[in-house]
Amino acid sequence: MERARAVIPNGMYGHESVALLPEGYPQFFSRAEGARLWDVDGNEYLDYMCAFGPNLFGYGHAEIDTAAAAQRARGDTMTGPGEAMVAFAEAMVAQVSHADWAMFCKNGTDATSMAVATARAHTGRGKILVGRGTYHGASGWAIQRASRGLMPEDKAHVIHFRYNDVESLADAVKMAGDDLAGIMITPFRHEVFQDQFLPDPAFLQFARESCDRAGALLIVDDVRAGFRLDRDCSIEAYGVSPDLSCWGKAIANGQPVSALLGVEKARQAAGSIVATGSFWFSAVPMAAGVATMRAIRETDYLERTIARGTALREGLQQQAAAHGFTLRQTGPAQMPQILFEEDPDFRFGYAWVTEALDRGVYLSPYHNMFICSALTEADVRLTLERTDDAFAALKARRSSVQPVEKIQPLVEAIRAANR
Amino acid sequence: MERARAVIPNGMYGHESVALLPEGYPQFFSRAEGARLWDVDGNEYLDYMCAFGPNLFGYGHAEIDTAAAAQRARGDTMTGPGEAMVAFAEAMVAQVSHADWAMFCKNGTDATSMAVATARAHTGRGKILVGRGTYHGASGWAIQRASRGLMPEDKAHVIHFRYNDVESLADAVKMAGDDLAGIMITPFRHEVFQDQFLPDPAFLQFARESCDRAGALLIVDDVRAGFRLDRDCSIEAYGVSPDLSCWGKAIANGQPVSALLGVEKARQAAGSIVATGSFWFSAVPMAAGVATMRAIRETDYLERTIARGTALREGLQQQAAAHGFTLRQTGPAQMPQILFEEDPDFRFGYAWVTEALDRGVYLSPYHNMFICSALTEADVRLTLERTDDAFAALKARRSSVQPVEKIQPLVEAIRAANR
Repeated sequence: MERARAVIPNGMYGHESVALLPEGYPQFFSRAEGARLWDVDGNEYLDYMCAFGPNLFGYGHAEIDTAAAAQRARGDTMTGPGEAMVAFAEAMVAQVSHADWAMFCKNGTDATSMAVATARAHTGRGKILVGRGTYHGASGWAIQRASRGLMPEDKAHVIHFRYNDVESLADAVKMAGDDLAGIMITPFRHEVFQDQFLPDPAFLQFARESCDRAGALLIVDDVRAGFRLDRDCSIEAYGVSPDLSCWGKAIANGQPVSALLGVEKARQAAGSIVATGSFWFSAVPMAAGVATMRAIRETDYLERTIARGTALREGLQQQAAAHGFTLRQTGPAQMPQILFEEDPDFRFGYAWVTEALDRGVYLSPYHNMFICSALTEADVRLTLERTDDAFAALKARRSSVQPVEKIQPLVEAIRAANR
Repeated sequence: MERARAVIPNGMYGHESVALLPEGYPQFFSRAEGARLWDVDGNEYLDYMCAFGPNLFGYGHAEIDTAAAAQRARGDTMTGPGEAMVAFAEAMVAQVSHADWAMFCKNGTDATSMAVATARAHTGRGKILVGRGTYHGASGWAIQRASRGLMPEDKAHVIHFRYNDVESLADAVKMAGDDLAGIMITPFRHEVFQDQFLPDPAFLQFARESCDRAGALLIVDDVRAGFRLDRDCSIEAYGVSPDLSCWGKAIANGQPVSALLGVEKARQAAGSIVATGSFWFSAVPMAAGVATMRAIRETDYLERTIARGTALREGLQQQAAAHGFTLRQTGPAQMPQILFEEDPDFRFGYAWVTEALDRGVYLSPYHNMFICSALTEADVRLTLERTDDAFAALKARRSSVQPVEKIQPLVEAIRAANR
């Protein structure tokens, strides 16, 4: 950290910074394997963050890494793409029922920004509707919290609605008038420092109908949740199909690639936007993506992650009760958010994950977590042994736990935005 | 291509699309090694595009790939960065004389967009000055050609000046008034379908002084040229030092990573912007970057690429003259742009590179090319044998060469913008 602070502003930045985590969380890691992680001091952790999403099948997954290595021996970043890019596009189009075509990029933000441009190109209109407080990436149009370096014009054509609130979405549609280009939604609400919640089917249906009525495009931002809830786009289970969907994180099990998928009617518009990046066409992530799609199709990874997440959730709920705490465990079990009831300043949550970390379990006190399919039943049992000790330790110092001062301004800002 | 057209809009997109290249240029590649490339049909090429920049030391460079493999065995995309991120930041800060800190990202566009945000955060102002027709990335603020899917507000605070024209830059500074946040320049002009040209030292000096007078930041976009002209930021040779510099392409010899470097006074601003991406902190590209910095420091790669480029340039000039053509070979010899005199519709240029391609030499008729240090003297001799044949073939069909219809609207638009 000392070396890092000398040559990197604040020592680190972005979503993998430990700035908002409790003191003692390690910033740098030396090794990762399966569902485990070792920090640079040699401490081993059961990792429930999965690199914030990319790790779906386990770090260093044999078949996916073998496919990547075979491609790497031939070529990676070349003067043009490899055949693997076509194979990956074919595999994603085969896997995702609404998709007729695919475009690959690098960041999740690339995919959501390309979706916005495609909706505007398709409709010839400007307004994009997004959920208030919803994270869709780190570009000016998407950043909602007051941030230095942004201009008001970045969001000139973005209108916010309240997620799951049909009336609020109807107001936003009305505000867009005849300039509605698209509505962007996450498949469920997965925001920091908040309970997660699933979409109301009537809300999804209303978003779909609003786009159909206006000739606008319905966009699903599946960057974080894609292939973790379903082997298809995450909202298909609700009987709602988008026109565009944004993917990233887990689609190549940690190799850097994101994607925009779309329906036939949006193909021409997608082909008309300016979108490119130095490493977007590198062959290795494409080959890893093909192998990842095969694993998604052919393995029980989804059922496994749900089963492990459910076992963890049930075990934690019992432990919390036994030690006199109540947890709010929200969202899909395989993407758990774990907050404490009656913990408005997050002091108990922060203290509990610190106790867990000290016992080799890496949890987040504010960000949704992820279960990878390399996590075994024995790993969950081991986790629960350790979290039980963590609850006991928390109970013992319950009355002396201090609030977490550094997060209070952010927590307040989030509460205000949600009001 | 047929398979690609089914699942990718237009079959391909972005800078590696062959849409603007002559018929017959291969779109997909099966293998790359050193300075050579094989297309999916098995044709071998001497590759003068170097993946549009990333390949500086040769595809599959032993030492860099060994460093990457060693890191990969431990971990790549993890819940936090590896120590290699700090080592890479240290190596870049040691290598680039103006740099006191580094931030890493994925796309060149990420780096230039972060530079814009940093300049705005540092000054609390909005206006960014960029060269008219200069490519600084594929985000709305940077895209200058009329493009579908963009909004006028994307460029609300961008003011254009004519590159190398002090008076034009002075006008732009005046127009920005007391809202000048930064001036962004490439270290030389390297735009498609145009001669390249080097910066006028007086122009660079005026840009520097304008920023100093206003308290604004001077930003060098060294994404394409970085470490190809110098072992330092490309404008240092002119005695001018920027406040921020943007890097990408070659800094990890093809591994996906880009960077924003800056001076001490801009550190706090850089640390205050929102910037992140799913794969920005992956450890393998950082390890490759450390090895690349070592190769930059310790090998004669720069002198080699200059010598090869110069030999190629001289050989081509003689060949062209012998066959009755005159070439305009512009820019640094190791980043050659090769256009034909008296070829306003590019017909001769397009026909000549097609003849060269048929003989196993991959050249671009509109984009600057790149020489990697794996290119040998023997490779240049072999290239010149083939290009001599290509000139002879062009001469034989000189009177029947047809103009390239598909590029004319773009060529016209570029000419109009340059007027």
